[in-house]
Amino acid sequence: MDKIRVGVVGYGNLGRGVLSALGQNEDMETAALFTRRDPADVAPEWNVKKDKVSNIGAYAGKIDVLVLCGGSATDLPVQSPELLAKFHIVDSFDTHAKIPEHYAALDKVGKTYGTCGVLSVGWDPGLFSLARILFGSVAPDGDDYTFWGRGVSQGHSDALRRIPGVKNAVQYTVPREDALAAVRSGSRPSLTARQKHLRECYIVLEEGADKAAVETAVREMPNYFADYDVDIRFVSEEELRRDHSAMPHGGFVMRTAQSAKGSKFHMELSLRLDSNPEFTAGVLVAYARAAYRLAKEGKTGAFTAFDIAPRYLSPLTEEQQRAHLL
Amino acid sequence: MDKIRVGVVGYGNLGRGVLSALGQNEDMETAALFTRRDPADVAPEWNVKKDKVSNIGAYAGKIDVLVLCGGSATDLPVQSPELLAKFHIVDSFDTHAKIPEHYAALDKVGKTYGTCGVLSVGWDPGLFSLARILFGSVAPDGDDYTFWGRGVSQGHSDALRRIPGVKNAVQYTVPREDALAAVRSGSRPSLTARQKHLRECYIVLEEGADKAAVETAVREMPNYFADYDVDIRFVSEEELRRDHSAMPHGGFVMRTAQSAKGSKFHMELSLRLDSNPEFTAGVLVAYARAAYRLAKEGKTGAFTAFDIAPRYLSPLTEEQQRAHLL
Repeated sequence: MDKIRVGVVGYGNLGRGVLSALGQNEDMETAALFTRRDPADVAPEWNVKKDKVSNIGAYAGKIDVLVLCGGSATDLPVQSPELLAKFHIVDSFDTHAKIPEHYAALDKVGKTYGTCGVLSVGWDPGLFSLARILFGSVAPDGDDYTFWGRGVSQGHSDALRRIPGVKNAVQYTVPREDALAAVRSGSRPSLTARQKHLRECYIVLEEGADKAAVETAVREMPNYFADYDVDIRFVSEEELRRDHSAMPHGGFVMRTAQSAKGSKFHMELSLRLDSNPEFTAGVLVAYARAAYRLAKEGKTGAFTAFDIAPRYLSPLTEEQQRAHLL
Repeated sequence: MDKIRVGVVGYGNLGRGVLSALGQNEDMETAALFTRRDPADVAPEWNVKKDKVSNIGAYAGKIDVLVLCGGSATDLPVQSPELLAKFHIVDSFDTHAKIPEHYAALDKVGKTYGTCGVLSVGWDPGLFSLARILFGSVAPDGDDYTFWGRGVSQGHSDALRRIPGVKNAVQYTVPREDALAAVRSGSRPSLTARQKHLRECYIVLEEGADKAAVETAVREMPNYFADYDVDIRFVSEEELRRDHSAMPHGGFVMRTAQSAKGSKFHMELSLRLDSNPEFTAGVLVAYARAAYRLAKEGKTGAFTAFDIAPRYLSPLTEEQQRAHLL
């Protein structure tokens, strides 16, 4: 069987994870890695062809699907529609509020150029979204709860680093045990942001920085920290590097619901991930397989996890899936 | 908007659950309830049209999809293909080993008569199957574990009732806490049947029955009990009725996996259900919506949960799904 030829765009944590995940999938191979940097400067552990992303047009016909590993803030809103004009693509666009806009852009390009664009796949949005739609569809009278963590939030860590006097920082989002227990009890509680998550901050100060001022700046920062209980710990650069350079994450999607006769149902999906980018990469690669198969069927336009039947994700044949997984 | 007209075939626990679940879904209505009994003898709490299943042919064109609520042992293997010749159908066929055969039968009938047959939807097979295919596709290097319970196993309860001297009985399948913990630790243990589940039996003896003989018959029964630790409790008929007539169930699908670089991932879906048939009914009803929509698109043949994109299950529009659930 011919392998699915996958191009990887971007060589940050996610791009590295995708190269690594492709090695775990025998039906796929890495066609090339594209970077905005000088390709000579990126040295993947895996032996792959490297090129500048500006040369990607020359690979039309040599690549079955591109996995885009850029960020949601500035990279993907531009890159995804642009590259979809020439390739089938998969991205992990995760700015929830802008998904409808991103979907519309990709759907238009995909239908114009006859390509397949799979957007917003990872674990949230992605697997967590699937849990939300499944749970809600089978048990309509209920409440959804999503908890994230314990894990590193890149956005909150960046927010800490922008505070004057902060040299480096890592922020863990921590779901509160009492909130998890309250939801699992079936009481369908109303929970504020503060009641659901705790924010744990490890901060390295610049030399001579005003500790008290930094602490106040954190606690009063709107959106990011003001509505939460915040646990601030000042550490050395060495301690931060040693103890907080991994990128674990995870979380819980729960739904508590009831039947028309009052029988209670508790549904829960949970993930515990040593490496957020490596797990997200695995999801992207499975959806790259789906994009390839959808394209082979002549499908075009934009697709989210909601639009893709699960059988497209698995390397197994449909017969094997029914015999072993159903 | 016209409501989806659903016919319900069979009025056992599952059929009652489906009638009740239809009331929770505003885009659907109960067109009729079909039974093999004299319709005058069944008295649903809901005011629905009742008819004999033998008259069902007269409803062609008046029903959009049938939900079949018979058993997997003898009802569905006959009923599903037979009714699929005239209607789009959904069933909860759950004899895992015979799913490929059932699929083939439905696929042939559906393609011949231009109808849609959705088979084997519920929670296992069904939601648990979805967890297995999703988890395995995104994290290929790992092990799957499925635990059932704590809940009533109809098959094991029936097996107890067939023992001479047993008047009535209920069997709970109980996942062992130490096994759950071992899997969650990420150690990827190999677990025997005995290590995974405990079997808890509540037995009412016939008058004058030989207690010791019954106990031996239980403990030595191949397949059902011989390979398990069995906890046997003799109770009165009154106690059984009072404490053990509910039908709770649930379980866990877990996968522990790792990335090519050794990062560990733990994925888990869990369900805790006060009523097994009422929850299964909710799943059937969501897939009835999917069958209706697939049929509207001109799709024909057999479909499992693997073949159906999640968006077909939700009453929300695709725009609402992307805005609120993704």
